[in-house]
Amino acid sequence: MNHTDIFAHRAQGMKASEIRELLKLLDQPDIISFAGGIPDPKYFPRAAFAEAMTVALDEATAGVALQYAASEGYVPLREWIADHMKTLGVSCDIDNIMVTAGSQQALDYLGKLFLDKDDTALVEWPTYLGALGAFNAYEPQFDRLNAGENRDPDAVAKQAQAAGGRAKFSYLSPDFANPTGKTLTKAERLAVLAQAEALGIAVIEDGAYQSLRYEGDAIPSILALEMADKGDIDACRTIYCGSFSKTLAPGLRVGWVVAAKPVISQIVLLKQAADLQTATINQIAVNHVARAVFDDHVVTLREVYGTRLNAMLNSLQAHMPEGITWTSPEGGMFVWLTLPAAMDGKDLLEQALAQKVAFVPGAAFYADGDTKNTIRLNFSMANEATIGTGIARLAEVIRTAMAR
Amino acid sequence: MNHTDIFAHRAQGMKASEIRELLKLLDQPDIISFAGGIPDPKYFPRAAFAEAMTVALDEATAGVALQYAASEGYVPLREWIADHMKTLGVSCDIDNIMVTAGSQQALDYLGKLFLDKDDTALVEWPTYLGALGAFNAYEPQFDRLNAGENRDPDAVAKQAQAAGGRAKFSYLSPDFANPTGKTLTKAERLAVLAQAEALGIAVIEDGAYQSLRYEGDAIPSILALEMADKGDIDACRTIYCGSFSKTLAPGLRVGWVVAAKPVISQIVLLKQAADLQTATINQIAVNHVARAVFDDHVVTLREVYGTRLNAMLNSLQAHMPEGITWTSPEGGMFVWLTLPAAMDGKDLLEQALAQKVAFVPGAAFYADGDTKNTIRLNFSMANEATIGTGIARLAEVIRTAMAR
Repeated sequence: MNHTDIFAHRAQGMKASEIRELLKLLDQPDIISFAGGIPDPKYFPRAAFAEAMTVALDEATAGVALQYAASEGYVPLREWIADHMKTLGVSCDIDNIMVTAGSQQALDYLGKLFLDKDDTALVEWPTYLGALGAFNAYEPQFDRLNAGENRDPDAVAKQAQAAGGRAKFSYLSPDFANPTGKTLTKAERLAVLAQAEALGIAVIEDGAYQSLRYEGDAIPSILALEMADKGDIDACRTIYCGSFSKTLAPGLRVGWVVAAKPVISQIVLLKQAADLQTATINQIAVNHVARAVFDDHVVTLREVYGTRLNAMLNSLQAHMPEGITWTSPEGGMFVWLTLPAAMDGKDLLEQALAQKVAFVPGAAFYADGDTKNTIRLNFSMANEATIGTGIARLAEVIRTAMAR
Repeated sequence: MNHTDIFAHRAQGMKASEIRELLKLLDQPDIISFAGGIPDPKYFPRAAFAEAMTVALDEATAGVALQYAASEGYVPLREWIADHMKTLGVSCDIDNIMVTAGSQQALDYLGKLFLDKDDTALVEWPTYLGALGAFNAYEPQFDRLNAGENRDPDAVAKQAQAAGGRAKFSYLSPDFANPTGKTLTKAERLAVLAQAEALGIAVIEDGAYQSLRYEGDAIPSILALEMADKGDIDACRTIYCGSFSKTLAPGLRVGWVVAAKPVISQIVLLKQAADLQTATINQIAVNHVARAVFDDHVVTLREVYGTRLNAMLNSLQAHMPEGITWTSPEGGMFVWLTLPAAMDGKDLLEQALAQKVAFVPGAAFYADGDTKNTIRLNFSMANEATIGTGIARLAEVIRTAMAR
């Protein structure tokens, strides 16, 4: 039997994530990898997790930790998240919060919730490729969000209709976005909200990196700005996706969604049907660790990653040839580098691998895959000296390619 | 903003799972609950999990346990699963195995993989309501599998076409099915395969309860029967879904899919896009515990649950009035009871709750919801004395309802 003959239409467009495939390179110790987007395991709060698991698996508590639990998520963790959101300017109830198996799962469920085939999702150009992947399963069209530009809502709506559906949401990561590292100004955030209001669509705000600011002042999240205006989360169109993967550890797969109750109650049903619940013991452990170390731990991470970001920016400045530009993020894990217009990041990767340095070519981050002359550099995994060596290598590879 | 205005069409048909809602009843200690389908937490291998977590979170290993990992799943766990499948008559490679966040997730991904809107899924009448929920997200039609009856494939295909799509797979749980407790004979399994062959469709075999046989001889799984015929898993149409939830513990959310490589490589892509991976530390812990205690632990569970099944069957025999019938399972967690034709299980539940006994009304297990006079009784959670008391109460409730 050839199963591919009976695959659904959506399976035809799916291909392997370049980042996931590139993760395999990390196993080769002599490669300096700026690929991936993973936190440095040296800074996982290991002892706190070990303690949390010991407590969770005590005779008195293991029966709960190992058992099925409610799809909404573990109540004490949702209470911690509610408190955390309050520090970010979002006052909400635990009924406005669902725990997910990482924020990637939130993107899957939100695509599932909103997107009929040929509906339009507005995304940045480039945007997080995992969001494109999650949404693609529901066969949407993508249009450009262009957060700074105030596109005419009527034109956007007309284009969505011409594509066979309706515009349903804007998706963006306003702080230190993956892949660009860029942060939207407050005015740009308000413009995204205004555009969504004019279109009658939701805003999906990916806050995965929000806690990882190394410089400059925090800007309120889009949800916080909308809350400040409307005063009630249940009146807000913005849906906020949070993650513990970048602050505590990704291997537990715990994230969350904060939104108006009708959205939460519907994605709870989607979750019941899709995987029943996020692992009970993981939620209990993350709750324990978040309460024990979150604030202090994030301070440590900001110091470590902030130093690495500076090392990368300084190395780029020192080594890159004329004609190469890059972003100057204030946080997150990525710097985005623009090559000369004629250069293809994929070709460059092949040449770079021969010189033992890796990165992610930028094309996959564009919904149309058409822009080839960008690459994404991750700075969270290597120490300053290694970053210097790797960027020097990469600059040499680019110089050679430019001379061809 | 009213988000429901922009929900996708699929969200309209979704409603809360009755079982999940009923789980809330379990918190009331004076109710004897035959609802739910959860294992008894007294028999979780707690110490083995505690040891596994301590090992996984050792300084030398925590960096792996807490980090991102490959979407396919943790290799040593896939090796254990391959060995386990071999004991079940299925010889396969780790490339034929993907780890999922529980077998519920496998059903979601397989629905996503195969079902375009209005394609047909063949299911038992009744069947596992979580399967109906998972598949429903992809807006299929359901038709009757009727495993014992050999329906005419041409008629099935014609009906699927009339519904606007194609038949894509048969879904069933051949051993001690949820909700009926029924087991298919070898001849019935072969007939399911022959029908799928004639239709050119896949078979999704839900093996969640396969290890929990308390009486009688094991019957090879459908995949094992197909393997015996074809000799190569990559030539098999059957896709087997396994779970650790009923044998070790559900709170970790770890299950697996075994299938031909083109199916596995495609659902790996779906998983990348949907939640990246099953939690790393959970896979490491389950691998540790499975290797340490799986075989012995399943022997213990068979004794405990087998005794409870007998207690329930004996109590039903002793207490139920004339005109009530039930299945006699050889394993699993459920007995399926048929009420007089005019009686509605939902009404009966209201009356039963007033008498402090709970169960799941059967209608939700039928794809058309049309059969009302059945109820599902779970026997895994209560000891023999409690089962006796609960069944006596339930019999009294039924007797009263019959006298009305």
